Amino acid sequence: MPVREGPPEGALFQLLRDGRPRTRAELSAETGLARSTIAERIESLLATGLLRHADKAESTGGRPPSMFAFNPGARVVLAADIGATHVKLAIADLSGEIIAEQDHVLDIAAGPETVLDYVAEAGRKLLKEVKRSAKELLGIGVGLPGPVEHASGRPVNPPIMPGWNSFDVKTYLRERLGIEVALVDNDVNLMALGEHRTHWPDAPNMMFVKVATGIGCGLISEGRLHRGSRGSAGDMGHVQVPHGADVPCRCGNAGCLEAVASGGAIAAKLTALGTRAEGSKDVVELARGGSVPALQLLRQAGRDIGEVLATAVSLFNPSVIVVGGALSQAGEHLIAGVREVVYRRSLPLATEELRIVQSRGGNQAGALGAAAMVIDHALSPEQLETLVAQ
Amino acid sequence: MPVREGPPEGALFQLLRDGRPRTRAELSAETGLARSTIAERIESLLATGLLRHADKAESTGGRPPSMFAFNPGARVVLAADIGATHVKLAIADLSGEIIAEQDHVLDIAAGPETVLDYVAEAGRKLLKEVKRSAKELLGIGVGLPGPVEHASGRPVNPPIMPGWNSFDVKTYLRERLGIEVALVDNDVNLMALGEHRTHWPDAPNMMFVKVATGIGCGLISEGRLHRGSRGSAGDMGHVQVPHGADVPCRCGNAGCLEAVASGGAIAAKLTALGTRAEGSKDVVELARGGSVPALQLLRQAGRDIGEVLATAVSLFNPSVIVVGGALSQAGEHLIAGVREVVYRRSLPLATEELRIVQSRGGNQAGALGAAAMVIDHALSPEQLETLVAQ
Repeated sequence: MPVREGPPEGALFQLLRDGRPRTRAELSAETGLARSTIAERIESLLATGLLRHADKAESTGGRPPSMFAFNPGARVVLAADIGATHVKLAIADLSGEIIAEQDHVLDIAAGPETVLDYVAEAGRKLLKEVKRSAKELLGIGVGLPGPVEHASGRPVNPPIMPGWNSFDVKTYLRERLGIEVALVDNDVNLMALGEHRTHWPDAPNMMFVKVATGIGCGLISEGRLHRGSRGSAGDMGHVQVPHGADVPCRCGNAGCLEAVASGGAIAAKLTALGTRAEGSKDVVELARGGSVPALQLLRQAGRDIGEVLATAVSLFNPSVIVVGGALSQAGEHLIAGVREVVYRRSLPLATEELRIVQSRGGNQAGALGAAAMVIDHALSPEQLETLVAQ
Repeated sequence: MPVREGPPEGALFQLLRDGRPRTRAELSAETGLARSTIAERIESLLATGLLRHADKAESTGGRPPSMFAFNPGARVVLAADIGATHVKLAIADLSGEIIAEQDHVLDIAAGPETVLDYVAEAGRKLLKEVKRSAKELLGIGVGLPGPVEHASGRPVNPPIMPGWNSFDVKTYLRERLGIEVALVDNDVNLMALGEHRTHWPDAPNMMFVKVATGIGCGLISEGRLHRGSRGSAGDMGHVQVPHGADVPCRCGNAGCLEAVASGGAIAAKLTALGTRAEGSKDVVELARGGSVPALQLLRQAGRDIGEVLATAVSLFNPSVIVVGGALSQAGEHLIAGVREVVYRRSLPLATEELRIVQSRGGNQAGALGAAAMVIDHALSPEQLETLVAQ
């Protein structure tokens, strides 16, 4: 059953979030709210700073009516994209635009307290650098490199995050930062959301595939993240590929996609061929330098990923597949392999309008998604009231 | 950007759709609407019949306050579940409960005009039989056995529906029945929706697999149908299965799931083994009669379907997979095969809470889904206003 969200006054602000300034009369016409309610509501929103006076409307003579617009600079959000060995911190305004960012080297195996204390501390410093006070911080969004139960904000048996299983990331950060809103999700989900909001807002059904040390994907269904019942949706790295049967995987099985097509898998093959390489970064450098074995192996990795994506495309019918992650920086060879297999193996109807493209968000995608997640939540009709009441 | 739906008065009715009667004071408290607005709104809704006076609240002395409740009998919807060779027509009240149904034999290859004229005519007769007037008909929901672009209501290159490609089913039925609302979707999508609403309302992430002449699935993402960019999501019948390489499929490829695990495929194998069988119905009868080859083939079909579902489960992370369609009526052998492979091949986290069960909606699932689709649309905040204004 559809349930109505929040009180009717919320309608006014949700309308204005599109950025277009409006007069009181326009707001009344579009929301159906009484002029007196509109006037009152505008006053409260101006007081929070979320609304501002905008340029006057063009007049036909006489005093032009006042216009009001969303003020995305009113507050900021903190985004933390936490990887296996690094953290990207970013501060974004309420339109989701990043106004400052910093990269840090940090091992996630140091455990949740150490990593999250660092995030809180470095986040506070970054806020100071952009001259915003702690009071202006609306919330924090965190991406973690493993499955996360989004509702509780707790990692669920994350394979590369020792000590993090079931840790209450949400409450820990709310307390450390003294804020109301802390939201946590899987990093690939947030990359999908960031890429969707920033570069593909008109593609409501989209897949984002991250190819790096691990391989995973994020699914956007009708404009919203599809997280699945345990937050593990998009977990394609350990799907078995036909010709990988004898390759052992770090998960304990053999023949997983990650065991044959990840950065580590390609680096190991290059090393066996006599070209020493350790991970995605080395593979990308070799490819950029024109190493033929590196390019061939990237193409084959693309084909292997395409094998799994072909089934995913038939099932999910996205209009765009965005390929991101460290390995996607190596150029077109990886994506060419993906395209080769997906267009051959998926159903005709599902590929009729399908585009397979490189990530445009690059290494900002996760932070953009973390910011979007927090903004959507904090400015939703339900949550907005707590802001207005403050 | 989230956009506010409909005028604020809509909140009142959406609240009441849960079936619980409420007083004016409760409605005012829950919606934030002024008492005068509430009183006015209740009058308009009582006039449409969508609201009714309910039992009085328990009184602490004095006159008890009036209570108002949703009246699901106020209007009815028509559901038409159109298969390759049959049509199920059903009439449901506004709670989605079926109050009358009829099955008809009808070949979809007769073309859209013939089939839809028949649906309109038989639908009118069924309405008469349950003593409801054409004026009480809120809309029609139609399921078709092929991909449908839901927004336009047009089939998209449906393989078994000659003459239907791009036919404007929506407009044709609106005109024939003289109604405002006609919605069209793929039959498996509607079976998924029907099963979800009726039997698994607490499983927001669900897959419904139909196994019959064709094999397809419907995906429920966070409580809503995931249709995909071209309406072809869930199209798993033509995904290739490893050991099917040499089996030709009616789609022109070889090794498709449908070519090895559909009712027709099993019937052909039985016939080759000396037991004459023509389709799903014969296979089910043989299985029920204890035919060992039929049971073995059903189990193997379940395993083949499980191969494709294993990847789907890792990607989509549903909490329930419902197996329906004619072949699922053969008993537990098919589902046992599905379970065997899915629990072995899918990722541990994705199967931790996964249940694989037989359809409970049976042959009503599609009609239940078609009714739910129409009711959701017609009683949504946007659409409700046209009803109230009438």
